[in-house]
Amino acid sequence: MKTLLSGDRPSGSLHLGHLLGSLEARVSLQSQFNSYFLIADIQAHTDNYLRPEEIKAFALDLVKDYISVGINPSLSSIVLQSSLTPLLELTQILSHFTNLNHLKQNPTLKTELAQRKVNNLSFLSYPVSQAADILGFGAEVIPVGIDQTPIIEFTNTLAKGINQHFKTTLLSPCEALLSPVSRLKGVDGSSKMSKSMNNCIFLKDSADEVKKKVYKMFTDPSHIHVHQPGKIEGNVVVYFLDILDPRQAELADLKAQYQTGGVADIMLKNRLVDIINARLEPIRAKRKELNDNAYLLNILKQGQADSLSKINKVIKPIKELFYLSL
Amino acid sequence: MKTLLSGDRPSGSLHLGHLLGSLEARVSLQSQFNSYFLIADIQAHTDNYLRPEEIKAFALDLVKDYISVGINPSLSSIVLQSSLTPLLELTQILSHFTNLNHLKQNPTLKTELAQRKVNNLSFLSYPVSQAADILGFGAEVIPVGIDQTPIIEFTNTLAKGINQHFKTTLLSPCEALLSPVSRLKGVDGSSKMSKSMNNCIFLKDSADEVKKKVYKMFTDPSHIHVHQPGKIEGNVVVYFLDILDPRQAELADLKAQYQTGGVADIMLKNRLVDIINARLEPIRAKRKELNDNAYLLNILKQGQADSLSKINKVIKPIKELFYLSL
Repeated sequence: MKTLLSGDRPSGSLHLGHLLGSLEARVSLQSQFNSYFLIADIQAHTDNYLRPEEIKAFALDLVKDYISVGINPSLSSIVLQSSLTPLLELTQILSHFTNLNHLKQNPTLKTELAQRKVNNLSFLSYPVSQAADILGFGAEVIPVGIDQTPIIEFTNTLAKGINQHFKTTLLSPCEALLSPVSRLKGVDGSSKMSKSMNNCIFLKDSADEVKKKVYKMFTDPSHIHVHQPGKIEGNVVVYFLDILDPRQAELADLKAQYQTGGVADIMLKNRLVDIINARLEPIRAKRKELNDNAYLLNILKQGQADSLSKINKVIKPIKELFYLSL
Repeated sequence: MKTLLSGDRPSGSLHLGHLLGSLEARVSLQSQFNSYFLIADIQAHTDNYLRPEEIKAFALDLVKDYISVGINPSLSSIVLQSSLTPLLELTQILSHFTNLNHLKQNPTLKTELAQRKVNNLSFLSYPVSQAADILGFGAEVIPVGIDQTPIIEFTNTLAKGINQHFKTTLLSPCEALLSPVSRLKGVDGSSKMSKSMNNCIFLKDSADEVKKKVYKMFTDPSHIHVHQPGKIEGNVVVYFLDILDPRQAELADLKAQYQTGGVADIMLKNRLVDIINARLEPIRAKRKELNDNAYLLNILKQGQADSLSKINKVIKPIKELFYLSL
């Protein structure tokens, strides 16, 4: 089986965008690949270094999220980035070969540096840390969104350069597995569901919180009375129904009726609330069972042990290429 | 006893400039301090990453240099930087707190970036790596030349910032122990003895190599015949005699005579050859005994063990402040 590496920064709770965009795919991929899911706490710190206690809590919470959506620790490894010090050795080695101009031209990094208004060394270096994660695991397949493909190219450029110079095959290039799902909008209708934009439905939201968030969604402001025709263009509730409704034929009829008149916004909203809650309920139920921190830490310890045996095979010979072995 | 940290990049052999500028001081300091001498191979790679085999050889050679000048492994620890992975964990944590503008304004780094014409991430980051070395060892005393004091200030600024934000005393500020010896000129009379300028007398040079180098030294070009007066200003042989001659009264007479006429350049040169060889001979003799690589590696292993127990005490609680402990 090929090795797959994916993960998340534990800088917030996972939301519906994560579920549709990556988590569900991971659940189905874990039987096809030797999968490692990285809780990238070092990366989370690059722009959250002043609040480590929060990041620690999010990291543990991410283990809950992963297991509750169906990531199975006996099929996959869930692993804490900071528990894998050999990755830092590889990061350090790769940083020798990282040209600063090349790094700063990375489109993903450029966008993020501008968005986050950070100017610290660790943030500038995070693509190198990601490259070390990928190459350290010898990961062959990296599920990514289209906006993250520059990271894959950056990683492969580094790997090829080093392999060529030292006439070796110690570093294995990786391949992007492009997510077929486009980015989910926020509950406010803006282009991206994102914690920093405060427009998320979180996996751990209660049924009532989901209801409140859906009830606040924008529909059609000119649709005041039930009998009036409603617009579906720009209607956020309809946007989410289009994506989430399992009965699309019934939804098509309902939308047609809405457009001619006779369907209340609240009816669409209640339909959406039920659909989202039906989807989140098993996740919530599973999450409730995960209240033993020792159990969660044990999963991370197991992930650490699995990962160390994997990454040491890759990193040790690379380290020996560069540094004296004692 | 306070902890002292010093060291060298193993990117070349040590020379007379090192001996007078730092090595002899270290030998006398090792009984007053708990001393660690770091063979900074990771740092050497920042601008030598394409030739790791050479750096490995220089690293092992540096152990020979240290022991032959009188560093005593039973009093001090000689330690290979790459053998201390916890330092990378601390480097990583410090890099969160390293503002890129502040880093780039570091005068030492600025000068070196310009001189070496490098533009890679690891070189830009090396002051952070040095800060991690210092803070990781909890080193209180750092012997430095005047041009390196910005590194000490940079380190203390990082330490104080982190201590203040987290209301802790986990990181200990350090103090520079300024070298009283000014920089040694090269055999070509240029301002600095430096491997890259090819103007060094190396500690491992043979008596014959020393003779050849001294014979090539610039004296006074207008001093053609023995009976003519010779100038001592700008006379490189006289410069080295002034610094190295143990019989300064006799040298004063000789210089006076040289200036009035009657002293041949070759006489001054032979005097200098003898003085340098007398100084280097015991070092050479000691070096000859150090031909067992296993013995040298063992010294580094001992240094690693000593250092790990020292740095783990400092770095573990800092890591726990930032990252989840498994």
